[in-house]
Amino acid sequence: MADKVLIYSRFPKSMMARFAERFELLDTGGKPAREVFSVDELGGIRAMLTAGGSPLGAEAMDLFPKLGTIVCYGTGYDGVDLKAAASRNIAVGHSPGANAASVADIAMTLMLATTRRILVADQYVRSGDWAASKQSPMMRPQAGMPGRRIGVYGMGEIGRKIAARCAAFEADVGYFSRTRYDIPPYQYFQSLEALADWCSVLMIAVRAGADTQHAVNADILKRLGADGYVVNISRGSVIDEKALVAALTDKTIAGAGLDVFEKEPHAPDALTALPNVVFAPHIGGHTLESHVAMQNCVLANLTAFFAGKPLPYAVKSA
Amino acid sequence: MADKVLIYSRFPKSMMARFAERFELLDTGGKPAREVFSVDELGGIRAMLTAGGSPLGAEAMDLFPKLGTIVCYGTGYDGVDLKAAASRNIAVGHSPGANAASVADIAMTLMLATTRRILVADQYVRSGDWAASKQSPMMRPQAGMPGRRIGVYGMGEIGRKIAARCAAFEADVGYFSRTRYDIPPYQYFQSLEALADWCSVLMIAVRAGADTQHAVNADILKRLGADGYVVNISRGSVIDEKALVAALTDKTIAGAGLDVFEKEPHAPDALTALPNVVFAPHIGGHTLESHVAMQNCVLANLTAFFAGKPLPYAVKSA
Repeated sequence: MADKVLIYSRFPKSMMARFAERFELLDTGGKPAREVFSVDELGGIRAMLTAGGSPLGAEAMDLFPKLGTIVCYGTGYDGVDLKAAASRNIAVGHSPGANAASVADIAMTLMLATTRRILVADQYVRSGDWAASKQSPMMRPQAGMPGRRIGVYGMGEIGRKIAARCAAFEADVGYFSRTRYDIPPYQYFQSLEALADWCSVLMIAVRAGADTQHAVNADILKRLGADGYVVNISRGSVIDEKALVAALTDKTIAGAGLDVFEKEPHAPDALTALPNVVFAPHIGGHTLESHVAMQNCVLANLTAFFAGKPLPYAVKSA
Repeated sequence: MADKVLIYSRFPKSMMARFAERFELLDTGGKPAREVFSVDELGGIRAMLTAGGSPLGAEAMDLFPKLGTIVCYGTGYDGVDLKAAASRNIAVGHSPGANAASVADIAMTLMLATTRRILVADQYVRSGDWAASKQSPMMRPQAGMPGRRIGVYGMGEIGRKIAARCAAFEADVGYFSRTRYDIPPYQYFQSLEALADWCSVLMIAVRAGADTQHAVNADILKRLGADGYVVNISRGSVIDEKALVAALTDKTIAGAGLDVFEKEPHAPDALTALPNVVFAPHIGGHTLESHVAMQNCVLANLTAFFAGKPLPYAVKSA
């Protein structure tokens, strides 16, 4: 009989196909588990697959008395209460680095799309306004990449890949992160404030958590300046979304590129009405190769767990 | 009295401001010069500023019996009949490399925007479809950049900058160009056909001319395959636009990113109706820094000409 895995978050069926070949999946479709399965069924659950951003606290864990592992699909695990898991001897796993290139690439895509105003450009051609020689104030020349000061907030695997890509665009790269790395030619800043004062594009690649909650607030945005941009591919919680809407509306900053939001899949109407933002529906890790890589980590974690071995891709701080 | 310069193409006034400080500008606004100025006025014209893509043949040159130089704003000079100019002792100048980074960056922007489907993604968020969990077949995961085979057609300054940027995205870069350069790790291909067979993204960075007219035709597009993309930031003439519309419509290729068109500023309706294309209104060189750099070349060329010296940025083959 196949080992059982509860699917805690809402995932497309296609992303679960490889797991279904190896395990018996109890798919909640993102609904509360008790609405979908009987207490008896849940009682036997030893392993669970979740999206790292889905809230998963002590109360939810206690619905599964035999739970031994929580495996996150992707690199993030900010929704999982690690202390609660540790005190219950629940091993938490994730997919470190598996989607780093894909996420870095969506950061670059969003940065280029906003700074070069590609949505406006595309619409200018499609609408016939270009052919009619209509004026378009938003199509005025903007600053380009060479010599541009790009600040990377967070220097994990994703941050490094963003920095390397930006350097190839002949930009100046600076960073702030808890740890100072010796990675010339990137300039280290002692604080997020100092980085924001220096740069005109802020790329948020920091791991989400209590210490980074609303780290990018009204003050940081103001420091970016009127030609400043912010790109977030980390978690919505890192930006104070209300402050961001205000800064974009009153032109405190020039624009934003956002793959993540405070309350996904909802983006506030005040935000989505703005012309100087490019949006993506949390598709950073959403390429064919990165799904394969993330699934490899999930399969390795689940297989090890059911064999009674430690998780090969365990969350380190757990 | 200031030297006179005829503005042959249609340029925004803001782009001409630095020239107006030094020269007396006779601005045609892109209309036939004889409709705007008298034969007497045109008879005295010795220098002319044009957009390199604007057709400028023997007949047009003969309207200006004293014409001594044609200065192109930008790197291209494909509209200028170089033989006709040479036989009339007209020196042709341009702005080589001044916009190379800016153009390479729009190529990268268009490639990332099409392959990651950023227009669809943005609309999916703005429309509320994401919040409503609606299916979106176009948002299915696509191939990412690491390991992707990217073919660069033309290895001039722009092609090299595109290649360097693609390499930073961990892609495999190949190229075809008249000249074979020793630039590891880029792989050289003997023909455009061989490059198209190998790559899944074709970046067109070749100089326009009779030898490259419709070089990217139905056959080349077919070789890219159903997961293939074409990005053109060179000139519209390099692609057979009818064949491109057909290939995009019947899914012979997956998508395209286009900054240039056969008959600018017109893009055919059959093309602009397609969802798998990202358009830009020929804004490749359109950043603040590249305008400054191009204007520096124009000023240097005009100043040298009126001082009786050779153009510092002369078209080499002229």
